[in-house]
Amino acid sequence: MARRSNRRTRRSESAELPQASRTVDYHNLINPFTPQTVFSNDEVEALHQNALRILEELGIKILLPAARERLKKAGALVDHDTFMVRIGREIVAQALASAPAEFKICGGIGDKDLLVAPGRLIFKSGAGCPHAFDRERGRRPGTLKDFEELIKLTESFDALQLLGAIVEPQDIAIHERHYRTARIQLSLSHKAPWVYARGNNQVTECFEMIRIMRGISIEEFKQSPYCSTVVNTNSPRQLDRPMAQGIIDFALAGQLCIITPFCLLGAMAPITVAGALSLQHAENLAGITLSQITKQGAPVLYGSFASNVDMRSGSPTFGTPEQVKATLGSGQLARHVGLPWRSSSGSGSNIADAQGAHETDMSAWAAVLAGANLMIHSAGWLEGGLTLGYEKMIIDMEMVQSFAELCGGATANEAELAFEAIADVEPGGHFFATQHTMDRYRTAFYEPLVADSSNFGQWQEAGSLTADQRATSVWQKRLETYTPPDIDPARLDELDAFICNRIAEGGAPLMD
Amino acid sequence: MARRSNRRTRRSESAELPQASRTVDYHNLINPFTPQTVFSNDEVEALHQNALRILEELGIKILLPAARERLKKAGALVDHDTFMVRIGREIVAQALASAPAEFKICGGIGDKDLLVAPGRLIFKSGAGCPHAFDRERGRRPGTLKDFEELIKLTESFDALQLLGAIVEPQDIAIHERHYRTARIQLSLSHKAPWVYARGNNQVTECFEMIRIMRGISIEEFKQSPYCSTVVNTNSPRQLDRPMAQGIIDFALAGQLCIITPFCLLGAMAPITVAGALSLQHAENLAGITLSQITKQGAPVLYGSFASNVDMRSGSPTFGTPEQVKATLGSGQLARHVGLPWRSSSGSGSNIADAQGAHETDMSAWAAVLAGANLMIHSAGWLEGGLTLGYEKMIIDMEMVQSFAELCGGATANEAELAFEAIADVEPGGHFFATQHTMDRYRTAFYEPLVADSSNFGQWQEAGSLTADQRATSVWQKRLETYTPPDIDPARLDELDAFICNRIAEGGAPLMD
Repeated sequence: MARRSNRRTRRSESAELPQASRTVDYHNLINPFTPQTVFSNDEVEALHQNALRILEELGIKILLPAARERLKKAGALVDHDTFMVRIGREIVAQALASAPAEFKICGGIGDKDLLVAPGRLIFKSGAGCPHAFDRERGRRPGTLKDFEELIKLTESFDALQLLGAIVEPQDIAIHERHYRTARIQLSLSHKAPWVYARGNNQVTECFEMIRIMRGISIEEFKQSPYCSTVVNTNSPRQLDRPMAQGIIDFALAGQLCIITPFCLLGAMAPITVAGALSLQHAENLAGITLSQITKQGAPVLYGSFASNVDMRSGSPTFGTPEQVKATLGSGQLARHVGLPWRSSSGSGSNIADAQGAHETDMSAWAAVLAGANLMIHSAGWLEGGLTLGYEKMIIDMEMVQSFAELCGGATANEAELAFEAIADVEPGGHFFATQHTMDRYRTAFYEPLVADSSNFGQWQEAGSLTADQRATSVWQKRLETYTPPDIDPARLDELDAFICNRIAEGGAPLMD
Repeated sequence: MARRSNRRTRRSESAELPQASRTVDYHNLINPFTPQTVFSNDEVEALHQNALRILEELGIKILLPAARERLKKAGALVDHDTFMVRIGREIVAQALASAPAEFKICGGIGDKDLLVAPGRLIFKSGAGCPHAFDRERGRRPGTLKDFEELIKLTESFDALQLLGAIVEPQDIAIHERHYRTARIQLSLSHKAPWVYARGNNQVTECFEMIRIMRGISIEEFKQSPYCSTVVNTNSPRQLDRPMAQGIIDFALAGQLCIITPFCLLGAMAPITVAGALSLQHAENLAGITLSQITKQGAPVLYGSFASNVDMRSGSPTFGTPEQVKATLGSGQLARHVGLPWRSSSGSGSNIADAQGAHETDMSAWAAVLAGANLMIHSAGWLEGGLTLGYEKMIIDMEMVQSFAELCGGATANEAELAFEAIADVEPGGHFFATQHTMDRYRTAFYEPLVADSSNFGQWQEAGSLTADQRATSVWQKRLETYTPPDIDPARLDELDAFICNRIAEGGAPLMD
């Protein structure tokens, strides 16, 4: 962990020792760790060659004719009967050469902009969950109210820098859902919103809603990503219609597309780490190629969501040693092709218990050590993403904020070396009352969100509450004290008029 | 993470693809990660110089006259009125030069031997806990029965390679406790036992009990460590009588002494990481110097147990960002002086909940990434060590075993790259039934100890059990199926006769 900068600032010039004001910037994080590896360089090259061979000899099934056409024009071998597309390594190499290694994601105001670049570390909450859970209201199909509350909670944490499709509002008709979720994201936060790639109609409308709220032209919009989507391949070796359309739409609009194969070892991918990563790499290269032949330089992230199944139940598992290894290998492959990349943390636990914390922590450490630039599902994921837990989100934010603190590093200047303070305290004494401590105690340490350091007796008297029980009041208080961002009411009026018109016209259907 | 070796062995020559037998050796672990840093090299040198200045100019209070005498003979400046000892940097440098960078800890049989060397990673359970807790019997003062059960559990886990003073058997008189705990350790396990440095009488008797059970002479015993102890300084800058005596006794007998200042940021140490580590380093250097001037080459470990207090309650906290930074810095200092070192994981939580898992995981990752050679308190620590939790131990062993799995690395040979398997599965299909999967599924993945991957409905039907609730039956089953090691009954008879005689003579008093 290399020291980045001395983030302590002098608060009082009058004190004999400088006072420390702990102002870790949770928004612009630089990963303090050296990327770790699981494969040798030769093995990484073998994985890369294996993926190129998969694309060249076996090919990938692409269900969208327009995508096949684009790849055919670029030189790929296309069989329109079987939908199979075989992509030569020269085409892939060209695509990799044009994909940007660094770009900016624009927020609603400048200080919500994010730089995606080597060494940068961005956290996003759990996403894509059909259900929501909290200890008071129980487990239920996600609603728009849940979506709104969870976006407010996201907004309340500086260490979550991107918005996500945090929970699926199942109470809203699918052809209207993108209006409602876009409005919530754009009115309750300045962070860059999420857009689902559910077909050209919805995507185009989402882009327009973002332009309205950001007050920018189509041309300005195309200059930088203002939103992101995730394109999941239908592993193994298949890309469905809305996902392929998403790659095309996002590339044409210059918006961020995060390619993410879902390669579960032993299920949708080979049971070996090397086999699963070969498949994941091949699918990434296919998606990146479609993006870059659509528009050279379109912002795209390499993606990994590799873990293993429980071979008895067939269920996906998270935070396992195999997932850690697959994540480290994914980072090596992303760096091998010179692209920024996304990884994930998350848990398969049904509840925010010790299993849940262990799995999320293990997978998050893997992502951080693998040098992931974006960690999705950092907070709130239960049941492998079937449920977004409010309490789980709070507990996981303790972890996310701890990583953010680690990005602040440490320094060892004369005042911090504390020779005089050590001289002032007698052997066997304590430092509680020294000036050195008094000058710093308010800001020296990270203040926990939910961790309880009371002793056993105090803890019993307070009701013997577990961390998830304590977390309930934490999210409730954060919702109570949530402050909306400063939004131009004229733009919001324009957005509402747009949405009203579109709904009156019947909304936008999903792409099948 | 560098690949260490291909640990998969060929089980069946007849299968088209080689079958994989997952035989990760949990006993001899090599840390797969590159040591991470928090300070620059210049800062590490500044910390080292600060510690030398502390020892030279301020000194350390040593309560044992014999220890002061030894240091005086070595050239230190001693004030017998104030007990203060000031140690010059030349004396420290000589001690560091003679302390071994590598040595073997001998177990009762050869395959329980442990190499302590750069890159090696050894796990030890939580230790020193006055209380025990399990979900059926509740929280209670530790008993000999708890001690025995917990040593049996330790024995049942290959990934715990050293025994520890896991819980304090408060039902046994203090002057007899060392007999009882030594007998349990030496009869129920071949792993190297723990000895408390509670004065020369008890230590000498423990050494004799070990020699009886190992069937070795005093001279053989002195050649290699057969046991370990931890010497805690009474931070700041104080070493009490039994601890100083322990350093001397263990050095003279060639047994392993683990120097461990307890430097809580803001309490017994300065509030800054750099200040606390300066103090910790100075106390380490003093202890190592006393060891080496007593006997050059005596096996000794540098030690860190730095964390921070909650500045509102004054309670120690664990798994915090400050602890992670302090641990990374401790590793840098240990490497700076060329010594193997111990770190810790552990939790301040009162129960085996999400807080407990998060804190233990965070501190354990810090220790692994800091290149610690021994991680104490790896499993079972609740309440910052006031309680050893049976369920917490099981939950933490999931983490320890996961780290052990990571030490196995991954490989990418042709069979693992799985091109043929990928070719065999149609796009959008699955790998469950492929030969490649069938050949490997029994051993491909780490099998969880307590993690549950059943879906929400199944989990509800099974009683909605949290991880700590499930862990109860795990430790119970492990105790039921515990198999004692093969112990020579003649040696055990000799040990019992020794203990019987000594108790008849009144036992051995504690040193005050």
